[in-house]
Amino acid sequence: MPLRFDTITFLSDYGRTDEFVGVVHSVVRAISPEVAVVDLTHDIAPYDTRAAGLLLARSAQYLCPGVVLAVVDPGVGTPRRGVAVEVGDGASVLVGPDNGLLAPAVAMCGGATAAVALDNVEYHLPAPGPTFAGRDVFAPVAAHLCAGVPLAEFGTAVDPASLLPGVLPVARTEDDDLVAEVLWVDRYGNAQLNVDPDELDGLAGEGEPVEVAFADTTRVASRADAYGMLPVGSVGLVVDSYGLVSVAVDRGSAAGELGLTPGTEVRLRAVGDDDDGPSGVTVSLGEPRRKP
Amino acid sequence: MPLRFDTITFLSDYGRTDEFVGVVHSVVRAISPEVAVVDLTHDIAPYDTRAAGLLLARSAQYLCPGVVLAVVDPGVGTPRRGVAVEVGDGASVLVGPDNGLLAPAVAMCGGATAAVALDNVEYHLPAPGPTFAGRDVFAPVAAHLCAGVPLAEFGTAVDPASLLPGVLPVARTEDDDLVAEVLWVDRYGNAQLNVDPDELDGLAGEGEPVEVAFADTTRVASRADAYGMLPVGSVGLVVDSYGLVSVAVDRGSAAGELGLTPGTEVRLRAVGDDDDGPSGVTVSLGEPRRKP
Amino acid sequence: MPLRFDTITFLSDYGRTDEFVGVVHSVVRAISPEVAVVDLTHDIAPYDTRAAGLLLARSAQYLCPGVVLAVVDPGVGTPRRGVAVEVGDGASVLVGPDNGLLAPAVAMCGGATAAVALDNVEYHLPAPGPTFAGRDVFAPVAAHLCAGVPLAEFGTAVDPASLLPGVLPVARTEDDDLVAEVLWVDRYGNAQLNVDPDELDGLAGEGEPVEVAFADTTRVASRADAYGMLPVGSVGLVVDSYGLVSVAVDRGSAAGELGLTPGTEVRLRAVGDDDDGPSGVTVSLGEPRRKP
Repeated sequence: MPLRFDTITFLSDYGRTDEFVGVVHSVVRAISPEVAVVDLTHDIAPYDTRAAGLLLARSAQYLCPGVVLAVVDPGVGTPRRGVAVEVGDGASVLVGPDNGLLAPAVAMCGGATAAVALDNVEYHLPAPGPTFAGRDVFAPVAAHLCAGVPLAEFGTAVDPASLLPGVLPVARTEDDDLVAEVLWVDRYGNAQLNVDPDELDGLAGEGEPVEVAFADTTRVASRADAYGMLPVGSVGLVVDSYGLVSVAVDRGSAAGELGLTPGTEVRLRAVGDDDDGPSGVTVSLGEPRRKP
Repeated sequence: MPLRFDTITFLSDYGRTDEFVGVVHSVVRAISPEVAVVDLTHDIAPYDTRAAGLLLARSAQYLCPGVVLAVVDPGVGTPRRGVAVEVGDGASVLVGPDNGLLAPAVAMCGGATAAVALDNVEYHLPAPGPTFAGRDVFAPVAAHLCAGVPLAEFGTAVDPASLLPGVLPVARTEDDDLVAEVLWVDRYGNAQLNVDPDELDGLAGEGEPVEVAFADTTRVASRADAYGMLPVGSVGLVVDSYGLVSVAVDRGSAAGELGLTPGTEVRLRAVGDDDDGPSGVTVSLGEPRRKP
Repeated sequence: MPLRFDTITFLSDYGRTDEFVGVVHSVVRAISPEVAVVDLTHDIAPYDTRAAGLLLARSAQYLCPGVVLAVVDPGVGTPRRGVAVEVGDGASVLVGPDNGLLAPAVAMCGGATAAVALDNVEYHLPAPGPTFAGRDVFAPVAAHLCAGVPLAEFGTAVDPASLLPGVLPVARTEDDDLVAEVLWVDRYGNAQLNVDPDELDGLAGEGEPVEVAFADTTRVASRADAYGMLPVGSVGLVVDSYGLVSVAVDRGSAAGELGLTPGTEVRLRAVGDDDDGPSGVTVSLGEPRRKP
């Protein structure tokens, strides 16, 4: 029988030190041996559904159509629902806990066209304990979806509007400040903001030297086309590979040097609004948002 | 020629920073390109054959039939034997050093039905040095096994009874205490004990509040069905996804908060045996076992 | 259409915490779904092209013929070239930035037989920003190479002699010292030197006890055939799995105990050259080389 889907994209907070990831691969392979499992990452901080949701949304447009298996599941074993969410009228299906993790990616894909709660235990593994739903529930469902089992088989249909939404912070204007937030700090220490380049254009022109202020400090940031084009040691604003503005330092960690973490509030404003300094953008950092 | 096995499950202490894991994948692929290699983990602490053996035993029932390639090999280059161990009359074959690493999984699979020492160098790679047996000996043997080379081809038959056993600690009763040991601390900080839920039943009933003592301290532990059902901040006893009792803290690290590491002795006893406190289980922690 | 190459070996400094590696896998799979991607490592320290070049050279002889996709790219977004370099008259092609990263492996494979600059954007993804060339340029080129697109299609031919060379340090003799350098410290703390066993033979015989000096200290090193054959606690010189001499401590980290890092200068000399001590080799450590 030909596969309905030949790819499972797999994301979790399992880490790679324990056997969790490998066991999920094995469970999939035992059910649907021809399916390829692409590991997106498994190093999400434990329980950080927000970071996982953002990561999945960033990746969505680059993923192969098929099944997304996403497991960051602090409520495992409690009555929280497991769900399978169809997007694009069946082009892809996202499988995981209904805790907001899937929501940003579902939105990126145009919204859910159908959803079920995974309450048909016929497609689950018998479990010695309730704590490893990735192995016992989500992986078998993902593998059976690939094999062609219809969505409706996995459980009770649910209204897509009842799925827990993800909360994505939106930059806002306050006085003449653009009040933004760090969405993500990558391996290189670049801090992605929830700011489109267009929003920055209203504050400072392309290539202009830009004044930047952090908390009590003020620094000048360059708008640059690439990390490697920043003056050594300077702070820059670079459009990153996802089309959002990021705070960067060439071959250094902007996040490390400036103390940025996901959730940090960042204020951008045109230089000269408050003083007679050079034209540009001022970046001010507020207090880090509390952990979710 | 059809493959005899189409899956190699691969476990090591190689880490992922060096090229070791990737090179082993390449060596397998050069010999048997159609075989899938499933990485179980490569982040076993260097030389920790005990942790690797326990991990493999936990995983065994979920692994695809085929070849298990397990390399944690402090004695590489010394006269320690490399072996291939058949289980289930050929359903699967485990390949690795004969240092106890394979023994718990072999036992889980019903014991060895045949074994050979890997002394036929015809199936090894020529090696510039003796220190990377995973690449030069174990991977080529695993790949050739998949391709259909009979077990007996790889070297001298050895009596399965002569294989080095693994030492699995068993909980014991001492006075009215159940003296247990931490087998494993997972990424979330849950500490798995060598205790079946049945053994706990003798000490406290399901859902009862449970008194717990750590070393000089005494705390109350809840018996809960899932991590997420524990009262915030409390210590719990949860049956984990392998059917053993684990010490847990909801969204916290029980191991981190309580100082548990693999090998720590844990004493469980019914509350009220020594005093007039509420009925339940007391957990006492002894000194950590010395490292192997 | 049959594939020209069925394997991409993938190396980067992306780490595994972000989605970079998974997204590259997805991009390849969307273009050439039948190609296997073998991850060599992604834990190269950010921007460390030297370490990545050495790792790739060590691995080269064990890799499946096909495409090597190597991305350590501090200059991403600047005018540095992306290149595809053919070796063995088309046996394999290496794809990555022209920053010296590919050079040691190209040399190991007998030198480049052709090369192109990747300036034909027809084979790139449309990019929202210039900073993720692995996803937008190198991965699509690698996948299209596997699918059979000829090298010349990807851009302007370049003279292989114009490719940026890698700089590989060569051990030299100074007075009667062999002045070597640490090339690599592996997960176990073994420190690989740029020294062939033959070079050591001139200083001390096989199995002789060997005197070793570190900076101001002097210690005796054994020449041993395997880590496990070293006396407990002693420093040894062992021919490693790549045929080079490494400094080792059995079940300990030589690098950790002795303070060795990549680039550390190490001096080896016959014991007794300067004093009346026992015959053997003295190892002296100089200052660490500055980071690249």
